[in-house]
Amino acid sequence: MKTLIDAAMKREKCDLVIKGAKVFNVFTGETEEGDIAVKKGKIVGVGSGYEADEIYNAKGAYALPSFIDAHIHVESSMLSPEEFALLSVRHGTGVIVADPHEIVNVCGIAGAEYMKEAFAHVRYRGVNPLDVCLQLPSCVPASPFETSGAVLNGRETEREIGRELFYGLGEFMNYPAVIGADEEALQKIGAAVLQGKMIDGHAPALSGNALNAYATAGIKTDHECVNSDDCREKLKRGLYVQLRNGSSAHNIEENAKAMNAYNYRRFILCSDDRNAYDLRTHGEIDDALSRLVRMGVPAPWAIACATLNTAECYGLKDKGAIAPSYDADIAIVENLKEFRVLAVFKRGVLVAEGDKALFSAERYSSKDVMGTVKIKEVRADDFKFDLSGNVRVVRVKPNGIMTEEEIVSVTGKDGDVILPKGVCKLAVIERHFASGNTGKCLLKGYGICGGALGISVAHDSHNLIIAGDDNEAMARVAMLLKEAGGGMAIVNGKFERAFALDIAGLMSGKSYEEVIRETEEITAHARRMGIEDGIEPFMSLVFLSLAVIPELRLTDKGLVDVNQFKIVSVKCEE
Amino acid sequence: MKTLIDAAMKREKCDLVIKGAKVFNVFTGETEEGDIAVKKGKIVGVGSGYEADEIYNAKGAYALPSFIDAHIHVESSMLSPEEFALLSVRHGTGVIVADPHEIVNVCGIAGAEYMKEAFAHVRYRGVNPLDVCLQLPSCVPASPFETSGAVLNGRETEREIGRELFYGLGEFMNYPAVIGADEEALQKIGAAVLQGKMIDGHAPALSGNALNAYATAGIKTDHECVNSDDCREKLKRGLYVQLRNGSSAHNIEENAKAMNAYNYRRFILCSDDRNAYDLRTHGEIDDALSRLVRMGVPAPWAIACATLNTAECYGLKDKGAIAPSYDADIAIVENLKEFRVLAVFKRGVLVAEGDKALFSAERYSSKDVMGTVKIKEVRADDFKFDLSGNVRVVRVKPNGIMTEEEIVSVTGKDGDVILPKGVCKLAVIERHFASGNTGKCLLKGYGICGGALGISVAHDSHNLIIAGDDNEAMARVAMLLKEAGGGMAIVNGKFERAFALDIAGLMSGKSYEEVIRETEEITAHARRMGIEDGIEPFMSLVFLSLAVIPELRLTDKGLVDVNQFKIVSVKCEE
Repeated sequence: MKTLIDAAMKREKCDLVIKGAKVFNVFTGETEEGDIAVKKGKIVGVGSGYEADEIYNAKGAYALPSFIDAHIHVESSMLSPEEFALLSVRHGTGVIVADPHEIVNVCGIAGAEYMKEAFAHVRYRGVNPLDVCLQLPSCVPASPFETSGAVLNGRETEREIGRELFYGLGEFMNYPAVIGADEEALQKIGAAVLQGKMIDGHAPALSGNALNAYATAGIKTDHECVNSDDCREKLKRGLYVQLRNGSSAHNIEENAKAMNAYNYRRFILCSDDRNAYDLRTHGEIDDALSRLVRMGVPAPWAIACATLNTAECYGLKDKGAIAPSYDADIAIVENLKEFRVLAVFKRGVLVAEGDKALFSAERYSSKDVMGTVKIKEVRADDFKFDLSGNVRVVRVKPNGIMTEEEIVSVTGKDGDVILPKGVCKLAVIERHFASGNTGKCLLKGYGICGGALGISVAHDSHNLIIAGDDNEAMARVAMLLKEAGGGMAIVNGKFERAFALDIAGLMSGKSYEEVIRETEEITAHARRMGIEDGIEPFMSLVFLSLAVIPELRLTDKGLVDVNQFKIVSVKCEE
Repeated sequence: MKTLIDAAMKREKCDLVIKGAKVFNVFTGETEEGDIAVKKGKIVGVGSGYEADEIYNAKGAYALPSFIDAHIHVESSMLSPEEFALLSVRHGTGVIVADPHEIVNVCGIAGAEYMKEAFAHVRYRGVNPLDVCLQLPSCVPASPFETSGAVLNGRETEREIGRELFYGLGEFMNYPAVIGADEEALQKIGAAVLQGKMIDGHAPALSGNALNAYATAGIKTDHECVNSDDCREKLKRGLYVQLRNGSSAHNIEENAKAMNAYNYRRFILCSDDRNAYDLRTHGEIDDALSRLVRMGVPAPWAIACATLNTAECYGLKDKGAIAPSYDADIAIVENLKEFRVLAVFKRGVLVAEGDKALFSAERYSSKDVMGTVKIKEVRADDFKFDLSGNVRVVRVKPNGIMTEEEIVSVTGKDGDVILPKGVCKLAVIERHFASGNTGKCLLKGYGICGGALGISVAHDSHNLIIAGDDNEAMARVAMLLKEAGGGMAIVNGKFERAFALDIAGLMSGKSYEEVIRETEEITAHARRMGIEDGIEPFMSLVFLSLAVIPELRLTDKGLVDVNQFKIVSVKCEE
């Protein structure tokens, strides 16, 4: 500390001085002209006349505290942690609160340990360019209606949440269990409270008594507000509202309508699920900031939502401000409108400049997260579906992830269903224990013709999910996914293509440019197979097994009516 | 937790429902109509239709989160902790961040332990009506120029700060040591940082590099801002501004000018030093609130400064809001203008109603804090002062605690000085170890005629401070203070009167009504002895030994020039 104070008093040289920046002060909302003095990774002053070994000239650009992404599933980028960091950092992010929900559903705690280690391997000039607060996933599995690779019960949660590995408890999606005072749910929450750890929420449209109960449990955030009224009620009950800038799910524009000069401190920004294309092309929290400002939110409020507010919400004492004693995590941006990031400092080290991260990370590899797709041999006959009469069909809707139940009358032939026009088959094959468990149903509104496609990312248990109108092709897709150790696969007559997501069947070890190109190419192929407009060929599939979002979903155990919260038969009862 | 959630969901009866209140929501700044449901001391919901064993009808009054006093020296009330709690609670305070700086300067850590125990003894229907976060005093003694009853060096601070007894490190008044990177100061601060404990500041008008250095050390608050510009600079450097509503020192009106819609979250309220009369008659944080609103600060900002902001500043996670999962610490106030407190709940227990605390506390007594005035026999001749020529005189100024140096020419006679008109003697007698150390000087602007008065409260080492123009009377005052175990004493010819402050020589064991009456009476007597207008007879004395406030002060070691930060002779050098 002596050396920091000596540097602040100019009795000693600083390590770095950032000159010529308009320094945004998140405490006052004002911009001040001044130099930022940094010593040993800490800001020691804002002022003038500092000497330093390294001078950075910001040339009139704005200096902001690095951004904090309040909630993200890194796995959804399909990038390895190392590649994710390259994009996240160069878009100005300094800290992510990461919930490794996907990989833990596949690999258990070993998945979280892998994430931590992989991020820890991202080192550059003595610093980690990206700080990661890892949340212990609270809902593994997310519902009782599916087979996940791991189960974290109350007792395991009690044991794990105390570890330094975990910053807090991840989004508690199973809100019915919380408001129902389910013993195991309360055991998990109680353990986090006891350890003084933060608990994230997930409670779309929860209201009234149920919201009071959910907040009573000590859950502190929500990123699932469905509209600004929902936001207002969450705010009142003491939850921070996380404005989400995901790839599939945005709620910034609608939800920020609830923000005003008094309550802006209770809003924070997050990505939740964001793909590599969006991360590279549009950015992360920088993109969220520009959206907020574009819709008319004053820049000082918006910046607070990306920095100080999040730091306060999560108790990150050294983060979120450019002021003495804070970590020198600084993003230099062109202006306070588009927030284009020109340079990024982490603990006083320049880690990104001119649209590029300056570091590159050796991949950390772990056997624990490889070779995770374990299935029995799958044959075409496995996809035969002996159905006739009225059946429940999952209807997907364009531009969203909601589904509806539709009753369709079908006829059978040779022990298989004759698919009506516009209807295909959907199958979910358990892939963690090679149990052979397979859920099947019919799917409408997706539109695939003469083939099949599948992916090993299928929320939240990440079994194989395959859609198609050709049993042979569906079986072949399953085997391609097995061979690749997970990924995306497509079979269209003789044409076959697979893109491996060999890290837990969720993420690729390749560079982000390769991941973006490969997913674009395979998606373009899929689109030629007749997928409906407004439907993302692969990304719409990955939510069709998420048995917590209405109305009808398919898991390896069968068709789930989410509203009734139970498994239902595909055939309607007479 | 199950029972809380069951109550929130109305599956179980609540313990208490507060009906008919306008519930102020500190997160949104709005007032909502609704009932507050409480179970096991926690708020479990705001809404309607709750059943409970106990119903409280607020009859249209406002429900606010109980107030948090961010910084107070309880000793300055001259009340025992038990009596202090009666007044504090009935004025709506739920938590105080108390710095037992005075008693620790007299009794060491045992003084802090006494405060903790005494407050812990204040129990009522299973709750402590007042929560106390005790800070470990950082400056014992406050300066090297005085003899205190205890010394807490760096090593002791390292040992003590880790104890559960202490919430954080008290105001770091010795800012020259901090910015000078003094080894012992940094040892103390480093220990607090290491333990993750909050550090309070005290840095009047500190600016520029010095302020950067002070903030770099990790100090997070300041209650000594001298004007709104000082506030603005402190805010920028990340310090919370504590608006002070003390008895001698107010800075609310001036400093709140720096508050605006963006930065209001960085302001909090405190009392610092507040006497029993003010506490009873005007209140504590409720009074600060009414001052803020009177000067035009919107009530929602003001209330946040008294509740949520302070809770965030100090990391009091369960405090500062009326929302599920928060402690049911609630003040019912008549309106959002005068903030007259009608009733107070603590963890769901009604602890004050209709201007009265409902509890009464048995006194906790400890030998550690009694019989602390230890002096040798004092005689009239001890106050003889062999002076002639130009001497440095302490000049007190009305309506404040600043002093000035004035050079006065005097003549001597029989080994004693002949007091010029308007000048009396001032003496500080060491009273912890009976060393006989006595500092003497001349005092102007005070105005005492034909006697002496003295007090055992004398910041910050609390030696005996005695002013008078009669050596016999001064000696007699010293002996009266010794006999009383500390207190206030006055001798005017044959008339004598003493009021005992027998707890550490700082506080009375009597009821607050008695303390107020007795201090009023003895003060009225003193005033008849010719004390100047605008000078508080006793309260102006207690700051005359505080060797950290400019310009000239007297301690048991002699005259201190605070600007030069050294002891100087009374006689001017030729």
